[in-house]
Parts: sequence; structure tokens; C-alpha cells
Amino acid sequence: MTLTLDHARTIIAATRAKGREMELKPLSVVVLDAGGHVMAFEREDRAAPGRFAIAHGKAYGAVMLGMAGRAQMARAEAQGYFMAAVNGVYGGQVVPVPGGVLVHDGDQVIGAVGVTGDTSDHDAEAALAGIAAAGFVGEE
Amino acid sequence: MTLTLDHARTIIAATRAKGREMELKPLSVVVLDAGGHVMAFEREDRAAPGRFAIAHGKAYGAVMLGMAGRAQMARAEAQGYFMAAVNGVYGGQVVPVPGGVLVHDGDQVIGAVGVTGDTSDHDAEAALAGIAAAGFVGEE
Amino acid sequence: MTLTLDHARTIIAATRAKGREMELKPLSVVVLDAGGHVMAFEREDRAAPGRFAIAHGKAYGAVMLGMAGRAQMARAEAQGYFMAAVNGVYGGQVVPVPGGVLVHDGDQVIGAVGVTGDTSDHDAEAALAGIAAAGFVGEE
Amino acid sequence: MTLTLDHARTIIAATRAKGREMELKPLSVVVLDAGGHVMAFEREDRAAPGRFAIAHGKAYGAVMLGMAGRAQMARAEAQGYFMAAVNGVYGGQVVPVPGGVLVHDGDQVIGAVGVTGDTSDHDAEAALAGIAAAGFVGEE
Repeated sequence: MTLTLDHARTIIAATRAKGREMELKPLSVVVLDAGGHVMAFEREDRAAPGRFAIAHGKAYGAVMLGMAGRAQMARAEAQGYFMAAVNGVYGGQVVPVPGGVLVHDGDQVIGAVGVTGDTSDHDAEAALAGIAAAGFVGEE
Repeated sequence: MTLTLDHARTIIAATRAKGREMELKPLSVVVLDAGGHVMAFEREDRAAPGRFAIAHGKAYGAVMLGMAGRAQMARAEAQGYFMAAVNGVYGGQVVPVPGGVLVHDGDQVIGAVGVTGDTSDHDAEAALAGIAAAGFVGEE
Repeated sequence: MTLTLDHARTIIAATRAKGREMELKPLSVVVLDAGGHVMAFEREDRAAPGRFAIAHGKAYGAVMLGMAGRAQMARAEAQGYFMAAVNGVYGGQVVPVPGGVLVHDGDQVIGAVGVTGDTSDHDAEAALAGIAAAGFVGEE
Repeated sequence: MTLTLDHARTIIAATRAKGREMELKPLSVVVLDAGGHVMAFEREDRAAPGRFAIAHGKAYGAVMLGMAGRAQMARAEAQGYFMAAVNGVYGGQVVPVPGGVLVHDGDQVIGAVGVTGDTSDHDAEAALAGIAAAGFVGEE
């Protein structure tokens, strides 16, 4: 199965609803397909203007590496020069922290979600809720 | 007035509806704020994966230069090296053709919409319908 | 409210006056709007030639992230790879130290000021005085 | 003689005054020193947000090449690939049209002014007036 735009819209709506339920700061949410390409994005009012690039960087690194944000963060803390080098080969587009969440359909990665605006842990929690609402399993 | 996310969502929904009414190919639609920053984006199913960058480039050039896509195209045809140079100073992010449409609130530019997927003229026509649906005036 | 050029000129003049009163080294001062775009800049005589990029980097990161220089510095010290990655997604344009000061009008961020030339703490103090002179509240 | 910040401020003020006298669209004006580094900049209200990069590109090419905007434009029209290549070696920062004006003190180039906002010819005319007001001779 591949992600459709309707899936992406559901993920964004449910991520945002979770953010409101948790009383998080304004969120920005991007959904990328299995090739790392942008399907849909929304930035909530009062979020800082540059949030697209952060959300995108969280999701892009996840899908390109096949490694969710939490694993990327662990690697960055253990071996910083490696993640810096990885970032170099991806044109500086990777933000290796929680909030970059892989979308699984069974054992297949079909995309990634990037969320930014609150703490990285809260961002990831909201993304997981969004992915579940679309019937998939998130790996944060 | 500044564009809100609700405005951006209305613009995207109405642009897509216009595309379906006109039986256009799958559209990708981005809305940027007055500073050229991404507010919302949707790429319809079956559109090519790289459409975000094209939609963004149409809207980004419009808002950064304060010049809609049709005027940019005229300038590019009359003085190609100038638009190439302008693109350079904006990091290669400008796509100077119709489908980059300014959003006016009275005499103020409050953002831009970028549409790609069908012919440039059809892309622009769909964007104008989307902007009108949100209560603003588009300049293509 | 949005910043006008007159506001920006007032901020720069008052920041420079504060610098002279504190007997700081020659200052360079930039004012960015809410979208991170340059409104005005002045570099005092005898400042090093490359000061525009430093002043810009302090202010640009602040407005794009919605996070003032002091908070960026704390994050960089706690989680260096994160701020390095953030810098990557913004094209290497972020300088995460004091002297990048947000301009608030009530609870809204309407721009940022970047000051460089003396110690980061002194740079920030001068910026705060400049912002206050224009009737706004700075967050350093 | 080298340009001082007071010179730069005089040039900007007089360029803007000329623009108002000629009833031009809102102008953006940058002054670079003999090394191509930004000394001062102002963007008038209602100018498009991306005008710094255009003004800078006009002045930067002039001072780096020692060739004013009008001569650059002639070269671009006669030998487009050459100016494209020149732009490449300067990091894509050159905008080769009138409005990039060299500042001469006798036979020495001491800086450049970049103006954008109206037609290129009008931009250059305003810059010449600004340079004259500071007691120097402009070469457009």
C-alpha cells in the first residue's frame, strides 16, 4: 500500500487534534511519501515562520535513512560526526531528533511524518496519534 | 490582514475543486505567507513526486519579487539573463511562469499561491478560483 | 502591527547610541521583519567587513525559529547536533548566541534585531535598548 | 578615501529623496564598500520582502567586477554565457542590470550602490543622485 493524499490529510488532522488535546504549542506537520517527497503540510497559526524546514528535516531524515528520529538522536549523541556526515550527503536537510516518525504498513515503510512546535517528545507523541488515526503504525 | 491556516486550507480546497471541475491533471497547491514561508501544501494522488518544488518556486518568486507569474514570464522572455540572475540571488528557488499567483487584501500583498500539474494557464485559473473562495483577490 | 522602516531606523539609531554610551566596540545592527527579511542595516566605521552576515545570522535564527539568541545558545550547549542540524535546514544562516533579539508587539513576534561587535551579552543589551526606543519589547 | 557609514547614510537618504521626487515605486538601497561588503541598507515600506537580495546583487557585481550595471547588461546581452559563468564564480550573487552603480573618488572605486524597486533606468538615476549628494561621482 502507498500513502494517499487522503491518508496524509487524516494524519495531519489527527496530529493537530492530539496537539490541541495535549495543549501543545502550535504545531507544524508534514507528511512525506516513501521516496521522501512532500505530500501535504500544515503550519498552525502563531507558529514561527521557519517551521516547514524543521518539520521536513525530521521526516526527511527518517525516511531517507529508514531510521526514526529517536534512533537518529541516539546515533547523533553516540557518534556526532557520523550524523553530521549523513546530513552532508543529504544536502543538510536532516534534523535528527524525535518528531520524525516512520509510517509502517506491516513491515514496509510507506512514508514519514515530521512534527515540530513543542518539545521533541511531545511532537513525536502527536505524530504517533496522527498515524494511528489513518490506520498505520508509527515508529518514533 | 494576514493569511491564517484556515484561509490557506480554503484556498487549497477550492483550487483543487476547480481543478476537478475543469478536469485538469492532478494538481499540487502551496500557500505561502507574506514572507514567503510555507503555510500549507497538498499534492494530489498521481502527481509526480517532485511537484512541491515547482509549486513552491512559482509562489516564492511571486511573493519575494512582488510580481505574479505572468509578469515574471514576460520579463524572462524579454530579458532572460535578468530572471536567471534573480533566481540566483534567491537560491534557485524561482519558477517564473503562470501558476504563481499573488494574494491581495486591498492594495497589500498578504501571500502567494503556487499551483502546478496542468498547463501553466490552467494552473493559474485554478489558483484564482481558490483565492476568490477565501475572499481575497488574486493577481496571476 | 508590522514594523515600518521608520521603526527600524529608530531601533538602529538607539542601539548605536546605547553602544556609544556603554563604550562598546563598533556595532553592526540589522532589523528583520516578521518573515526574516532585511529591512535596514548599518555597520559602524572600523567594524570588520564581514559583520553583516553575523548580525543577520543572529536575527534570522531568532525570527525563523521564534527563539531568541539566549535560548538558542542554551539549546546549542545542551544539544549541539540539533542546532547544527537546524542551521543546515536554514542554509547555514543561523548564529545561535545572544545579540539575536525578538521584537514583540504584545504576544506577537513582529521581527528581530541582530547586533554584533562587542561581547554577545553587550550586543544583546544594546539591542534591547534600541527596541525599547521604538516602543516595543525585546526578548533576548 | 574610503566610504564611511555617514557617507553611506547620506547616499541612502538622497537616493530615497530622489525616488520620492521622481514619484518612483518604493525603493531598496544598499551601499557596499570597496571590498563588496554591506555597509548600510534600507527598504522602503511596501517594497516586496525579497528586495535586499536584488539591491545587493546589483551592487555586488559592480564592485566585484569593477563594471557598472549598464556595462554588465551590455555584456549579458552580447555574451550571455559569460555573465552566467561570472555569476557562477561569485556564488550566484550578481544581478547585471542598471541600478548597480560604482562610487568613484577620482580614479579610485571606493564602493557601489544598488537600487531596486522601479525600472532599472530609474533605479540608476536615483542612485546617481544619492552618490552625488555625498560628494562622489557615480558610474551607472
